[in-house]
Amino acid sequence: MELTQAEALEYLRELFANQLPFHQLMGIELHSQGEGALELRLPMRPALVGNPAQQILHGGVTATLLDVAGGLTAFSAVIKSRQSWPRELLARRMKNLGTIDLRVDYLRPGRGELFVATGTVIRAGNKVAVARMELHNERGSHIAFGTGTYLVG
Amino acid sequence: MELTQAEALEYLRELFANQLPFHQLMGIELHSQGEGALELRLPMRPALVGNPAQQILHGGVTATLLDVAGGLTAFSAVIKSRQSWPRELLARRMKNLGTIDLRVDYLRPGRGELFVATGTVIRAGNKVAVARMELHNERGSHIAFGTGTYLVG
Amino acid sequence: MELTQAEALEYLRELFANQLPFHQLMGIELHSQGEGALELRLPMRPALVGNPAQQILHGGVTATLLDVAGGLTAFSAVIKSRQSWPRELLARRMKNLGTIDLRVDYLRPGRGELFVATGTVIRAGNKVAVARMELHNERGSHIAFGTGTYLVG
Amino acid sequence: MELTQAEALEYLRELFANQLPFHQLMGIELHSQGEGALELRLPMRPALVGNPAQQILHGGVTATLLDVAGGLTAFSAVIKSRQSWPRELLARRMKNLGTIDLRVDYLRPGRGELFVATGTVIRAGNKVAVARMELHNERGSHIAFGTGTYLVG
Repeated sequence: MELTQAEALEYLRELFANQLPFHQLMGIELHSQGEGALELRLPMRPALVGNPAQQILHGGVTATLLDVAGGLTAFSAVIKSRQSWPRELLARRMKNLGTIDLRVDYLRPGRGELFVATGTVIRAGNKVAVARMELHNERGSHIAFGTGTYLVG
Repeated sequence: MELTQAEALEYLRELFANQLPFHQLMGIELHSQGEGALELRLPMRPALVGNPAQQILHGGVTATLLDVAGGLTAFSAVIKSRQSWPRELLARRMKNLGTIDLRVDYLRPGRGELFVATGTVIRAGNKVAVARMELHNERGSHIAFGTGTYLVG
Repeated sequence: MELTQAEALEYLRELFANQLPFHQLMGIELHSQGEGALELRLPMRPALVGNPAQQILHGGVTATLLDVAGGLTAFSAVIKSRQSWPRELLARRMKNLGTIDLRVDYLRPGRGELFVATGTVIRAGNKVAVARMELHNERGSHIAFGTGTYLVG
Repeated sequence: MELTQAEALEYLRELFANQLPFHQLMGIELHSQGEGALELRLPMRPALVGNPAQQILHGGVTATLLDVAGGLTAFSAVIKSRQSWPRELLARRMKNLGTIDLRVDYLRPGRGELFVATGTVIRAGNKVAVARMELHNERGSHIAFGTGTYLVG
């Protein structure tokens, strides 16, 4: 059975939004921004604090948001490379999706009420993709940059 | 008031073990290994899964464990650089402790029941320290490497 | 004796352009782009080839150009933080300028006749600065990204 | 026509030692250390200086040595994965060998008379390999660490 490209993208979003237990523990939400662009949102709450003296986001939360934004962006690009997807092929490639390496640059203390992560593919390959990611707060302050290399094939 | 070096290390451990809400959300435990070496342990549980098809640890959990192990190792080295610590000086330097950048290399899928993170300082400075970190499972399989640059002054 | 900010920037440019033997071995040229922006240029030649089957730029040349662009950008920002510079203070801070860590992302094979490297500071501190760098060829193809953390104080 | 594994390794060494113009510009030498281990050596000379006030190795030279050591190590592991190599298959895979990303951690100023770079594969795949590399001087001082992700397939 075949999925259209749009159905395959919807399947990916559903997986990231609802079927990954760690995303739910964190409180990560997935939003479409039109034209196929996606962003992750995470409302601040006390359980995400990493520095009690400063009440800022834990660096592990920042790394998680950037890694997820990168993987989602990289695999979305894979899906967009075909007009339709045999369901088994899509499932097999998603199963193998994984991060090879990740770099996070922390620019500012993670202050804010809502954190937003986005990504862009900078190297698209059949086996390996590289994405750049950014984390901002609700006032547009740039909190962190990320770069991730993903196995996508 | 002054703390001895041993008291200052105990204060750091207490902070990481009990006063960081995100460490408690994750379930991170801090163990002393003698001679001042520390390791972080995290028992696997369903909420930490990042790939439902494979039931493996989420890459964000791996990044978090490595970042925390690196920061703890880097700041422990700072504490060991003085025989005693005026309480205010220690508090001020801890308040400023932060990750500048982090690289994670994912070597194997995160399978296991208990994950253990350790770190070593490879560049010790008065302002900036660099640490290398490792994550293993309970059978000694090497899951990931990390490298982190920390502001410690 | 004091240098104005403009004189201090000129001193930095002169140092990078003419007094670093390795820049001359490579053939790196330094150009001002107005408004204080700088770019490095390197004309391709056979001695810079890294893959004889493909006649492309050696990855070490790419890393060198990005590292130099990052250090130059980071230290230019330091100079711009003061209106004037006592000569001794400037010399002491330049002597200590060094790369703490560097990440290079290779996006495309390094084909071209002239390579151009530029940088932007993304985290400016008194002791540590982080810069992002880019390498393009003469047709504007984006060859590589870099991120560098520099000791500037 | 087929090459034995030993002949294929010899072909790789010959290529790195004698057919890459940039390695000759730098003065990089390749030495076998027995059991198939390789190391790169580079004697210091004035043209490699990167900081005239301190007479230390340019950071771009360090990055180059680590990148080359990583690529050589990664591709040696690929060769060792087969007992023999059809010449065309070997040539095709070598042609595609490339660095995806590289991280360099500079630990100490690059002082010395002879620099030695070595590498180890930490993730071996059919398409992507990850290596860790080290640079020491002739007295065994540890100058830099590297981590590189290589396309090997």
